[in-house]
Amino acid sequence: MGKGQELYKKAKNIIPGGTMLLSKRPEMFLPDNWPSYFSKAKGCFVWDLDNNKYVDASIMGIGTNTLGYSNKDIDSAVIKTIRAGNMSTLNCPEEVMLAEKLIEINPWADMVRFARTGGEANSIAIRIARAAVGRDNIAICGYHGWHDWYLSVNHNKRGNDLSSHLLPGLNPLGVPKKLKNSVFPFTYNNYKELERLVFEKNIGVIKMEVIRNHQPQNDFLKKVRKLATEKNIVLIFDECTSGFRETFGGIFKKYRVEPDLAMFGKTLGNGFAITAVVGKRNIMESAQKTFISSTFWTERTGPTAALKTLEIMDKIKSWERITKLGKIVRNGWDEIAKRNNVPIKINGIPALSSFTFNHKDDLKFRTYLTQQFLKNGFLGSNSFYTSTAHSEKIISNYLKIFEQILFDISECIETKKSIDHIINGPIIHNGFKRLN
Amino acid sequence: MGKGQELYKKAKNIIPGGTMLLSKRPEMFLPDNWPSYFSKAKGCFVWDLDNNKYVDASIMGIGTNTLGYSNKDIDSAVIKTIRAGNMSTLNCPEEVMLAEKLIEINPWADMVRFARTGGEANSIAIRIARAAVGRDNIAICGYHGWHDWYLSVNHNKRGNDLSSHLLPGLNPLGVPKKLKNSVFPFTYNNYKELERLVFEKNIGVIKMEVIRNHQPQNDFLKKVRKLATEKNIVLIFDECTSGFRETFGGIFKKYRVEPDLAMFGKTLGNGFAITAVVGKRNIMESAQKTFISSTFWTERTGPTAALKTLEIMDKIKSWERITKLGKIVRNGWDEIAKRNNVPIKINGIPALSSFTFNHKDDLKFRTYLTQQFLKNGFLGSNSFYTSTAHSEKIISNYLKIFEQILFDISECIETKKSIDHIINGPIIHNGFKRLN
Repeated sequence: MGKGQELYKKAKNIIPGGTMLLSKRPEMFLPDNWPSYFSKAKGCFVWDLDNNKYVDASIMGIGTNTLGYSNKDIDSAVIKTIRAGNMSTLNCPEEVMLAEKLIEINPWADMVRFARTGGEANSIAIRIARAAVGRDNIAICGYHGWHDWYLSVNHNKRGNDLSSHLLPGLNPLGVPKKLKNSVFPFTYNNYKELERLVFEKNIGVIKMEVIRNHQPQNDFLKKVRKLATEKNIVLIFDECTSGFRETFGGIFKKYRVEPDLAMFGKTLGNGFAITAVVGKRNIMESAQKTFISSTFWTERTGPTAALKTLEIMDKIKSWERITKLGKIVRNGWDEIAKRNNVPIKINGIPALSSFTFNHKDDLKFRTYLTQQFLKNGFLGSNSFYTSTAHSEKIISNYLKIFEQILFDISECIETKKSIDHIINGPIIHNGFKRLN
Repeated sequence: MGKGQELYKKAKNIIPGGTMLLSKRPEMFLPDNWPSYFSKAKGCFVWDLDNNKYVDASIMGIGTNTLGYSNKDIDSAVIKTIRAGNMSTLNCPEEVMLAEKLIEINPWADMVRFARTGGEANSIAIRIARAAVGRDNIAICGYHGWHDWYLSVNHNKRGNDLSSHLLPGLNPLGVPKKLKNSVFPFTYNNYKELERLVFEKNIGVIKMEVIRNHQPQNDFLKKVRKLATEKNIVLIFDECTSGFRETFGGIFKKYRVEPDLAMFGKTLGNGFAITAVVGKRNIMESAQKTFISSTFWTERTGPTAALKTLEIMDKIKSWERITKLGKIVRNGWDEIAKRNNVPIKINGIPALSSFTFNHKDDLKFRTYLTQQFLKNGFLGSNSFYTSTAHSEKIISNYLKIFEQILFDISECIETKKSIDHIINGPIIHNGFKRLN
């Protein structure tokens, strides 16, 4: 057992859950054997506490580092800001510059508020939208964080809960039961369902991820937009994850539909904590009629990192590069799986690709997959979030190992022999359905 | 008009409220004339966008920088972390080290969760407490952030709202009306009121600031602790502001009363974004039965900054130093006010001191005060949050200017002449009653 697993044992005793993010729990990758902690990260490489070097061919910080870890130009900008002072009683000018930049990227929008996490940005957007529209009920489609307003959906009766929205079976313990029946989920591409909700539940706000696994069908997004406009509903696109993956901004630009509010996060500061709510003036000004305020939203490294990240993204068109690389990964998965007669289902957009095995032993196969990738110097899982620090060469090496792994799996499938005998530890956990 | 005011004009057009924090709005200090933005901050000095240098004799980043701005040792540690990589798919070991350190400082506690803002830490503590106890109703005393659970208090009928808790008259627009009558305020030192609440409202959680303006009387804190224990109520001390001001940890240590959960924030990372929820195992483990997870809580600079901040605080006993300096400020205010026959009321703990003029022209006098401090190279207001970067010499200079200002004010009071003719701009806003 490496130093990382030793430290994680300690962590589980003093941190409930062991980590701050469900998706970074070692059990999600390879229980007992995942390196768990890093000492260094650079480009697409990560070093563990025993100084083993890996290629990150998995979630790249859960999608935070589109421009690679420790990006030199961004780090230099942040270090310069730290040397000049990252906090004071006065405000930092970078937040105004970043607001201007985000409005330039989103010409449909007029105003911006910043936070430091995606959950916060989601809560700010919901507060502003409810304040603007004067109705509390919300229709949602997708994953929108850990806060009460969202998890309250799981207080609703079955069928109206989060079962099909990435958090099935989640116990909303500690979320006020009074919030029951204030937020209602709808299914992507099911316009009729949304329309019924809007009529029956006096919906004031629609919040959704623009795209997850399926392309919009039958003008779904345009119909949602039209419905929202007609019924005086605030339409919010949660772009925390999808933003800057396929366009310089929201993925909604691809579909020529504009929201009233949009949130950006994850890769906005290339690994530094910064998230944003961008919106139309008549909605955003409602922030003034309520109270939305937090000390650390004034910290200076967040907007500094975002300004430099956006500058570089724009210059190198990072979204084109990561989409291209993502397609290479997907095509590789697809071809290799077919060649080896292993049934897989690929999900997500190219830059945030993942797959599952269409097989009852999915979790076992994924355990073996990560185990073998690790042995070959890759942090590999059933997800691959691409960055500009990945190269065609690295992906080619990755796919060679993938081919070996799928060959072993295909043998198990063909001979109906259990894969158990070549797995050296417990099977992975499967807690979070997002993008799977 | 300086560059800062020009930029702030632009900001108000594209950021609702102009800033991310109500307490940093220029109108709270000196409308039209506050420098508003900083280019550089070091020690207790701040430079504005026109390169004017000021002594920060006001809120020191709203209490974030106990060890001064741009503290060399903390910045070096953070820069080292950035160079090594601040984010990856693996977790950062610093979060485990920081959890260990916080448990060492809080031997009554066993487990820790981190966030990046005080509002988040408050929401996490409330979620965990509600999950642990299985009852939703909360009694509060103090200021606990911007989230729905807290602001819902202002949906209650008058007398049960936040009137006496720093946010009087606040419209809880956009907060679900269903949350009405789930959170109830009580008055500090009024044990009977709390006891009645607990009996009548099936209270499951008590959350309070340990001290604001008054010392606990008649064993108030001990009685609250006893009541919570007897009634199986989770007792939470919000130490986001008071922590590390008078002890190495919570101010509750002074009063020999221990909570079930405590939050720390503000000065924990000396200006870098990091907040923590610390608590007893049987309560904290409820975090596992619900969903509390956010991407940027895994970022590495926050725990790095906190580890170094705690190391330095411990070494130099910063809480003793800032309390000593705070007492010098208060004594100065008091003596000078008495000498000039200007009635003032001093509030807060020494390291977070503030005052108001006991006079109908309070806001006008405070406007004049800030205007004159600014002319003399001080960011000065009716608050002075001390840091180890302040010196007796600087405070002595500050008090000399304070004496001149109070002399002018005393003349106005004595001659019953309005102060308007010596004020060069609009009167300050008074939006936030906290610690005033």
